[in-house]
Amino acid sequence: MNYVRNAWYVASWSQDLDTEKPFAITILGERIVIWRTAEGSLHALEDRCVHRLAPLSLGRCEGERLRCMYHGLLFNPDGEVVEIPGQELIPATARVKHYAVVERHSWIWVWMGDARAADPALIPPAVGFDHPDYVLGCGQLDYAAEARLINDNLLDFSHLTYVHANSFGTGNDFAERQPKITMLARGVRFERWIRGGIGNAAIRVSEEPMDRWQSYDFLIPGVLLMWSAGYPLGTAEALDYQQPRQEDAITGLNFTSQAVTPMGEKTARYFFSWGPHRRHGDEQMRDNMMKVAGQAFAEDKVMIEAQQRVIDETASPQIMPTSHDRGVTLFNGLVRKLVQTENAGARDAA
Amino acid sequence: MNYVRNAWYVASWSQDLDTEKPFAITILGERIVIWRTAEGSLHALEDRCVHRLAPLSLGRCEGERLRCMYHGLLFNPDGEVVEIPGQELIPATARVKHYAVVERHSWIWVWMGDARAADPALIPPAVGFDHPDYVLGCGQLDYAAEARLINDNLLDFSHLTYVHANSFGTGNDFAERQPKITMLARGVRFERWIRGGIGNAAIRVSEEPMDRWQSYDFLIPGVLLMWSAGYPLGTAEALDYQQPRQEDAITGLNFTSQAVTPMGEKTARYFFSWGPHRRHGDEQMRDNMMKVAGQAFAEDKVMIEAQQRVIDETASPQIMPTSHDRGVTLFNGLVRKLVQTENAGARDAA
Amino acid sequence: MNYVRNAWYVASWSQDLDTEKPFAITILGERIVIWRTAEGSLHALEDRCVHRLAPLSLGRCEGERLRCMYHGLLFNPDGEVVEIPGQELIPATARVKHYAVVERHSWIWVWMGDARAADPALIPPAVGFDHPDYVLGCGQLDYAAEARLINDNLLDFSHLTYVHANSFGTGNDFAERQPKITMLARGVRFERWIRGGIGNAAIRVSEEPMDRWQSYDFLIPGVLLMWSAGYPLGTAEALDYQQPRQEDAITGLNFTSQAVTPMGEKTARYFFSWGPHRRHGDEQMRDNMMKVAGQAFAEDKVMIEAQQRVIDETASPQIMPTSHDRGVTLFNGLVRKLVQTENAGARDAA
Repeated sequence: MNYVRNAWYVASWSQDLDTEKPFAITILGERIVIWRTAEGSLHALEDRCVHRLAPLSLGRCEGERLRCMYHGLLFNPDGEVVEIPGQELIPATARVKHYAVVERHSWIWVWMGDARAADPALIPPAVGFDHPDYVLGCGQLDYAAEARLINDNLLDFSHLTYVHANSFGTGNDFAERQPKITMLARGVRFERWIRGGIGNAAIRVSEEPMDRWQSYDFLIPGVLLMWSAGYPLGTAEALDYQQPRQEDAITGLNFTSQAVTPMGEKTARYFFSWGPHRRHGDEQMRDNMMKVAGQAFAEDKVMIEAQQRVIDETASPQIMPTSHDRGVTLFNGLVRKLVQTENAGARDAA
Repeated sequence: MNYVRNAWYVASWSQDLDTEKPFAITILGERIVIWRTAEGSLHALEDRCVHRLAPLSLGRCEGERLRCMYHGLLFNPDGEVVEIPGQELIPATARVKHYAVVERHSWIWVWMGDARAADPALIPPAVGFDHPDYVLGCGQLDYAAEARLINDNLLDFSHLTYVHANSFGTGNDFAERQPKITMLARGVRFERWIRGGIGNAAIRVSEEPMDRWQSYDFLIPGVLLMWSAGYPLGTAEALDYQQPRQEDAITGLNFTSQAVTPMGEKTARYFFSWGPHRRHGDEQMRDNMMKVAGQAFAEDKVMIEAQQRVIDETASPQIMPTSHDRGVTLFNGLVRKLVQTENAGARDAA
Repeated sequence: MNYVRNAWYVASWSQDLDTEKPFAITILGERIVIWRTAEGSLHALEDRCVHRLAPLSLGRCEGERLRCMYHGLLFNPDGEVVEIPGQELIPATARVKHYAVVERHSWIWVWMGDARAADPALIPPAVGFDHPDYVLGCGQLDYAAEARLINDNLLDFSHLTYVHANSFGTGNDFAERQPKITMLARGVRFERWIRGGIGNAAIRVSEEPMDRWQSYDFLIPGVLLMWSAGYPLGTAEALDYQQPRQEDAITGLNFTSQAVTPMGEKTARYFFSWGPHRRHGDEQMRDNMMKVAGQAFAEDKVMIEAQQRVIDETASPQIMPTSHDRGVTLFNGLVRKLVQTENAGARDAA
């Protein structure tokens, strides 16, 4: 699969990882078991016993260690076998792969490259439940589609006008115009003013037209971080279409964090949170936003899974990019470049 | 798949194609979207957007056009893209395949060859709900089996004695005798007299023995058109076993139209209607006939899908034809010949 | 598939094979139909008609013969076609493969090698419902896993400590020690004393410690025959750890017969019976034992099917045997040797 390895992938919501209950997830085709010890530390190993390939995620937590519950081999958090029942000697090869894992912004992040090179500074600055300013709801969806198709979807918001005509209620005008697009070191930034609109149905508090700002970063490996807010009519022009300050927003300031995790070749998990800033909304507004988001993200899933099925049945699938694909093209180019660099590094090391 | 392309395949019942609700079906492995406009015209296109391969069947009808509801590309009925939101120029390559489509005899027919060569005169003369003389019921079944196996089934009625012993109630005698078989330009004709029988349980109105005539054409690409009726005892001999006139039938004159549409390699859709002539029966008889047919066609499905599974698990599946296979052999030979002619034509054109 | 062909495989429980109801099972990837005639004899044929490959298991019993219910070909118990409706001549090639089949110990056994070489003396001495001394219950489970993985499981009981910690309640001590292992002509024997334990939860009648004996043969092709019983504390030492006599058991004498039948590449059926000796238990104890066994065998299924999935997703699956794998290694070595001998014989014959 053509994805960056030296990156942090979301494996789970923090609140879904119970203490001493090993959790299994496949990322980039690799089966991983993650567990939280009674002491509160997090560990992640290859989910495959060296003995007979039973999944360690069916295992038992014992202190910082994990025991395979097929024939009892005991693994330490580095992946070394430290006990084989009924046998004194433990072969040096008795070990499984170890992954770097970090909990931050209410997500459990796994580094898919060499664990020694894992750099927590590369974790995207998502907004989690621990953030004091936002009232968030969250959800997740499993896709029968490759992650790249979901990334592509999130990298071209012109689909809002069509896929989400009945949920977010984005008008035709939206798809006629292009956002400002800027390359980042590890992603692409999208910025736009929507002038004189009445805003997204999910966060609209008044029918009065205003200028609305929308800005998001789409970051390696597939994390979308977006805020938007409403400003007095004329603000866009007054600011010469530059980015406004969040504190000047008069309504609807909100933040959404979204992450796309490639599982198998054609399966992915999509994590999302969304909610208003405390000054602009409350739990009730958040619940309403999540209801609309639930409908909208189901619309994406129907479209993208159908798209995947068509691709699967097409002998030589070829796309025809449009002008709206600029963000898609820039991001996929960045992925390609990073993957090439990784592969070159792997060849040099070999 | 080894099927004739220059032929009309049934895609749907007329009554199942709602106005401005795009309908998706795969025929010969090709995804097709068919829609009926508010004006009443019918269109059929390749069900795959040129942009990112989303299915157009999730699209929106706009007059005679169809808009892809992923990123809004608009297609005219010929398959040309006529609008790309946010982009002025439309590439000349922005087009999908167009299919000839015709509504007739309560069926929607799609021509799978070159649309310019589509010849409505080749549509088989099925009997639809618009026919004044018959009281029809209808149904359809999806098969997890290749269409050819269903065709083979319909080309050898000796299976009635075994598969349908408990539904149509055909006796042993039936399988012991051969029908008269005649080649047609685009099919095979089967004719037979069953002398002194009491007839098929579904349409029997009396226990009195009579001579029964049964005749059907099995036509390219896989359409069965059959009528049968009861005549006074001795008619068969009096007519020297030739075909009787329908107007001389004394009981049970009925007509059934059936169509087998290959969808994928091992999936097919089977459409059928059946019912008595108005002079020989009414809605109640039709309902009784459809009840028996429902049971009988489920019996076929069980047998044919099981046969498909055995074939799939057989390394080199080989059949051993019997004398009853003459119709199967003639029809499949005709298919082979037509396919060869098409392939030769394609090579000459290339 | 790498399994011995000259062996008897369990196809069904005796009580599940109704008179004149053809029964289908796939063994070693071969579809087989087995039927019991009104006279009580058993027959087994390849489940695939020579005509169009319909399954004979959808057929009708007629005396000792079986009629294909697609187009009526009639087969005798040797697999020869003896009637083709509507056709006088029957080709000499009109025959399907015939299998030797024997009913014994409440199981229907099929010989997968050359039927002429079938030797009923090789049927493992299981204990069936016809055995006067045991009060048995029985069950079966279909696995989405290859049979070899289930065999491996049964050839290393150290998994009891882990997989069955909550059902059979086997303690840690059990996995620390090795049984005595002996090669048999067609299998491997496991014997062990468990000193001073309180025994398996399923058959425990008292909390008083005693010495418990456990012994089983695992026989080609995959049949486990085990008995165990409790003896007074000190018996193990007094007998110098040799096998005790069944009649000296003071409690919990019981017998279990288990059979693993490879169906497809990655499917298997697991048959099992279990129960106390009449002197040591009754129907109520048997029901309790079966309840615990039901839980335990479900635990195995969860683990082994998960193991299969991990193996399937592993590019080059490799195991790392432990000291507990000695029985596995011996048995799989025996299988390999027998298969090689069979293959050499087949080459010589060719």
